[in-house]
Amino acid sequence: MTDHPISRFPVPALADLPADIRARILAVQEKSGFIPNVFLALAHRPDEFRAFFAYHDALMEKQGGLSKADREMIVVATSGANHCQYCVVAHGAILRIRAKNPLIADQVAVNYRKADLDGRQRAMLDFAMKVALEAHTVGDADFAALAPHGFSAEDAWDIAAIAAFFGMSNRLANVASLRPNDEFYMLGRG
Amino acid sequence: MTDHPISRFPVPALADLPADIRARILAVQEKSGFIPNVFLALAHRPDEFRAFFAYHDALMEKQGGLSKADREMIVVATSGANHCQYCVVAHGAILRIRAKNPLIADQVAVNYRKADLDGRQRAMLDFAMKVALEAHTVGDADFAALAPHGFSAEDAWDIAAIAAFFGMSNRLANVASLRPNDEFYMLGRG
Amino acid sequence: MTDHPISRFPVPALADLPADIRARILAVQEKSGFIPNVFLALAHRPDEFRAFFAYHDALMEKQGGLSKADREMIVVATSGANHCQYCVVAHGAILRIRAKNPLIADQVAVNYRKADLDGRQRAMLDFAMKVALEAHTVGDADFAALAPHGFSAEDAWDIAAIAAFFGMSNRLANVASLRPNDEFYMLGRG
Amino acid sequence: MTDHPISRFPVPALADLPADIRARILAVQEKSGFIPNVFLALAHRPDEFRAFFAYHDALMEKQGGLSKADREMIVVATSGANHCQYCVVAHGAILRIRAKNPLIADQVAVNYRKADLDGRQRAMLDFAMKVALEAHTVGDADFAALAPHGFSAEDAWDIAAIAAFFGMSNRLANVASLRPNDEFYMLGRG
Amino acid sequence: MTDHPISRFPVPALADLPADIRARILAVQEKSGFIPNVFLALAHRPDEFRAFFAYHDALMEKQGGLSKADREMIVVATSGANHCQYCVVAHGAILRIRAKNPLIADQVAVNYRKADLDGRQRAMLDFAMKVALEAHTVGDADFAALAPHGFSAEDAWDIAAIAAFFGMSNRLANVASLRPNDEFYMLGRG
Amino acid sequence: MTDHPISRFPVPALADLPADIRARILAVQEKSGFIPNVFLALAHRPDEFRAFFAYHDALMEKQGGLSKADREMIVVATSGANHCQYCVVAHGAILRIRAKNPLIADQVAVNYRKADLDGRQRAMLDFAMKVALEAHTVGDADFAALAPHGFSAEDAWDIAAIAAFFGMSNRLANVASLRPNDEFYMLGRG
Repeated sequence: MTDHPISRFPVPALADLPADIRARILAVQEKSGFIPNVFLALAHRPDEFRAFFAYHDALMEKQGGLSKADREMIVVATSGANHCQYCVVAHGAILRIRAKNPLIADQVAVNYRKADLDGRQRAMLDFAMKVALEAHTVGDADFAALAPHGFSAEDAWDIAAIAAFFGMSNRLANVASLRPNDEFYMLGRG
Repeated sequence: MTDHPISRFPVPALADLPADIRARILAVQEKSGFIPNVFLALAHRPDEFRAFFAYHDALMEKQGGLSKADREMIVVATSGANHCQYCVVAHGAILRIRAKNPLIADQVAVNYRKADLDGRQRAMLDFAMKVALEAHTVGDADFAALAPHGFSAEDAWDIAAIAAFFGMSNRLANVASLRPNDEFYMLGRG
Repeated sequence: MTDHPISRFPVPALADLPADIRARILAVQEKSGFIPNVFLALAHRPDEFRAFFAYHDALMEKQGGLSKADREMIVVATSGANHCQYCVVAHGAILRIRAKNPLIADQVAVNYRKADLDGRQRAMLDFAMKVALEAHTVGDADFAALAPHGFSAEDAWDIAAIAAFFGMSNRLANVASLRPNDEFYMLGRG
Repeated sequence: MTDHPISRFPVPALADLPADIRARILAVQEKSGFIPNVFLALAHRPDEFRAFFAYHDALMEKQGGLSKADREMIVVATSGANHCQYCVVAHGAILRIRAKNPLIADQVAVNYRKADLDGRQRAMLDFAMKVALEAHTVGDADFAALAPHGFSAEDAWDIAAIAAFFGMSNRLANVASLRPNDEFYMLGRG
Repeated sequence: MTDHPISRFPVPALADLPADIRARILAVQEKSGFIPNVFLALAHRPDEFRAFFAYHDALMEKQGGLSKADREMIVVATSGANHCQYCVVAHGAILRIRAKNPLIADQVAVNYRKADLDGRQRAMLDFAMKVALEAHTVGDADFAALAPHGFSAEDAWDIAAIAAFFGMSNRLANVASLRPNDEFYMLGRG
Repeated sequence: MTDHPISRFPVPALADLPADIRARILAVQEKSGFIPNVFLALAHRPDEFRAFFAYHDALMEKQGGLSKADREMIVVATSGANHCQYCVVAHGAILRIRAKNPLIADQVAVNYRKADLDGRQRAMLDFAMKVALEAHTVGDADFAALAPHGFSAEDAWDIAAIAAFFGMSNRLANVASLRPNDEFYMLGRG
C-alpha cells in the first residue's frame, strides 16, 4: 500500500499564507492538536478558503432547531452517499464527539436507515439525502414529512443547506483526492 | 397556469436588509436593470448570502485559463444535469451575453454533446459533468484528457470548483423553488 | 465554436424528393416561413418520413381532452428528460405559441415540477414522464392519479402515445445529431 | 393466477373496423393462423394503427445490410431492456423463425452479451442498446465501432430506427398491459 | 452465430470428481435426463459446490408458506432483473413444471408486473425484487405489505433469502458466462 | 437515539441450538472474545447457517493468489457499495487486523479509488465492484485487466465469488437489520 499525498494540488507552506488564513489555521491547530488537511488544501486558493469557511461557519455554528450533532450527522450521511472519504472520516470524528456516541458515525455513513436513530433523526436524514441525491424532486410532501417531528421551515433550510454545502465540499475533496488526517480515525472512539 | 412565488421561504424587503447586502443588491439592480431573485431569496440568511457571493465571485470573476463565457457554460451544462430551472434560465442569459451567441445556452442546457462547441469546450464540459454527476470516480485519466486542450491543473480546479459550487446552488434553488426573473428569458437573444 | 450540420446523414435536395413529400415540406415552409430541419433529415428516408408524419399528425392534431398546448407541453417535458436538443428547441417554440406563454417552455424543459403549472398539468406530466422513463412500472395507480383531474382513459392513451412517439423521435434526433433551426429559438418569446 | 385481458383499453370487434384495417388483420390471421394482439389493441385507434404499421413495415421489410433475423434480434434485445413482455414474446418467436435458431431469442432477451452471437451481431446490439438506453450520448465513436463489421451509415440508421421505433412500441405495450398471444410462446422452438 | 462453451473456467470430467459430488451429479442426471451445466461448472471448486447446493436445498426444498412454484417464481423474476441467462432459462423451465403453466416463466422474466399473477404473488415478487435491487432500503413498510397476503415473518425470510442466494448465483453465472443446457428451453412448454 | 436489536428475526438461545452450531459459535467466542451477531442471527435457520459458513470458509480460508487481507478488502469495498452496515463494520475490523493497517477499512468502505492501495489492489477492487454492481456486463476485457497484475483465472474466480457471496450476505443483513457488535468498531485501530 502507498500513502496518497494530502491533495492532488499544491499545498502551501503556512509561512506563505495570508495572515488571516494562517491565523485561522493556527487557531484550529491549537484547538484540535493538528491541522485538518482541508484547511491546507483549500489554502491554495485564499479567496475560496475564506468563502468556504465563512459559509461553513454560517451553517454549522448557527443557533436553531438542529443541534451540533444533528448537523454533523447530516454531513456524514450525505458524504457517505457522495463517497467522500475525507468528509466521512473527518466529520465522522466530529459526530462521535458531538453525539457522545462512538458508534453512530460508522452506522450513518454506511446506511442511516439501519442506524441507532430516533424518528426525528430519521426524518431529518431522509430529507437531507433527498436534497443530496435528487433535489429537483423535493416538494411540498417532503416539507410536510418534517413538520410532525418539530422541524420548522427554517430547520428545513438548515438541513438542505448543509446537505448542499457538503455536496460541494464532497465534490471538491474527491477531485483533489483530499486525504483525511490519520488523527481523525480514532477521535471520539474512546 | 399559476405563477409560483420567488421562493418557498420568506423574501425580505430591501429596507430590512443589512447595509452591505442592500448595497450589493442595489448595485446589481443598477447594472442589470432588475434584481435577480437569487439575491432576494438568499438575503433571508445574511451570513449565507455574504459567503455565497464571496465564493461566487472568487470563482466567476477570477483571472485564468477559462474565459467568462467558459465559466458560464459550465454553469449552464451542470445546472441542466441537476434540473435547476433558476440557474439554467439565469446563467443561460449570462452565457448568451458573454459568448455573444444567442443559441448556445439552450443547446448546452439540453445536451452539450450536440452543441456548437469546439474540442476544447467539449473536454471542459466532459470534466465538469463528471464532477457534477460522479465526482467520486474522477481520477488521473480525467485530468489527462484536459491537458491536450491546454487546460492546466489550475484550470481543472476552476472547472471542478464551478461545477461543485453550482451543484450546491442548484440544490438550494430546487429546495426553495427559486423562480427565475421573467427578464432573464429574453436577455442576449437579440 | 463550430456550427454542426443539419444531420449526420445525407440531406436530400428538395428537387430530388417524391412529389408528396416535397409538397408537404413546401406547405410547412409557406406556413412557418422556414423548413424545420426534421423534415429535411427524415426526407432521406421517404417511407419513414410518411409514416412518421402520419403518426405525428394522428397524435398532435387529434381532438380530445388535451389541448394543443397540453400536447406540446408533454413533448417538451419528455424531450428534456431524453436530452433531445432538437425537440426541446423546436417544440419549445411551438409550446410558447400554443400556450401564449413566453416562459413556459424553458421552465418545463428543465424541471416541470418547478414550472407555472396547475394541478391538472402537473398530473399530466407526471404520467408522461413515467411513460418516458419507466413505462414498465406504469399501472393502475398511475391511471387513478389522472382521473381526479378529468382525464379519461382516452386522454391517458393520448398522453402515453405522445410521450412514446417523441421518445422515438428524441432517439432518432440524438443519433442523427439533428440541428434545430436558428429560427426556433426566438419564436413565441415576443 | 389470473389471465390478464388483451389490453387495458377497449378492443374493437373485427366487424366494426375500417375495411383497410380489417383486411390487414385478416391477411395476418391467414398467414399466421392467429391475430397477434397488437393488431387488435392498436385498431382501437385506426389512424395510429395505420401509421404504426406503415412505419413498422418501412423498417422491418426494407432491403439493406441487415437481414430479417438481424432486425428481429434488435427488437428482442431492446425490448428486453425496456421490460416489454409483449415484444419479447412475440418478436422472440419471429426471431427464432427468422434465425432458424430455437435458443437465440431467450438468450438475447436476458443478456445479449452472453448469447451465441458473432462479433458483427454483438457490435450491432451494442449500438442498438445504446440508442435504446442513452441515445443522447451516441456519437462518432459509436459509428466508428460499427464500421469494421461492415455496417454502413445506412445500416446504422436502420439499427437506430428499429431500436427507437420499438422503444415507442415497448412503451405503448407496457402502458396498455398488452398481452402476448399464447401461440407465440411455442413458435419456432421445434 | 457461435456456440459459447459451458463456462469460461475449466469444466472437470465426471471421473475426476470427488465421489460425493459425482454421486449428486449422477443422481440429477438420472432424474432429469441430463446434467444441468451449473453442476459441471461449480464442480471445478468442490468445496464451493458442496456449500452452494447445501444452501440451495435449504432454501428451495424447505417446507413453509411458499410453494415450490412460488420459490421458482422468485428465482426467475430476480434473475431477469440481474440479467442472468442461465438462471432465467434453467429456472424458467422448473417454474413452468412446478406451476404447471407453460407461459408464466417468460412473463415473469421480462416484467412480472404484467404477468398472470394474483395479488399474493405480486406482493411476494415486489418484496423479492426490492431485496434483489435495493436491499439497503428494505424496512418495516415492506414487511407490512406482505402480511395482508398471509405471508409470515418466516415467509419473508424465505423470500429474501432466495432472492439473495440467487443474486449470488446470478453474479457467478454471469462472470463464468455459464451456458444454459439446450434441454431447458423446451421443458414444461408442452 | 435508540439501539436496534441484533436482528429483526428471532435470535435463538445458545442452549437451544444443535450441537454442531453451538460448538462453532463457542469456538468463535473463545477465539474472538465475543460472538459476532451474524452467527446468532443465522442460527435461527440451522441448515442455512451450516451452508453459509461452509461457503464462507471455502472462499475466505482458501489458499491462492489472494492474501487474507485481499479477501477482506473485497468484502469491505463491495459491502460499502451495497450499504451493508454489519459487513462494513465487522469485516472492516478484520481487514484492519489482517492488513495491519488501522486506516484502510474506513478508506475502502467509502471510496476505494481514493484509498492507500497499490495498482494490484486497485485492479482487484475494480473487478470486484463490477461483479457486485453490474456482473451482467463482465467480459473478456475485465479478465484482461487483471492479468498484468499477476492475477490468474483462479484468482479472478476468487474475487468474483467473494463479491457474489457477500452480495448475498449484504442483502440478508440489510433485510434482517443485522446489528454489528459494539466490539467490532474498535478492533484493529490500536
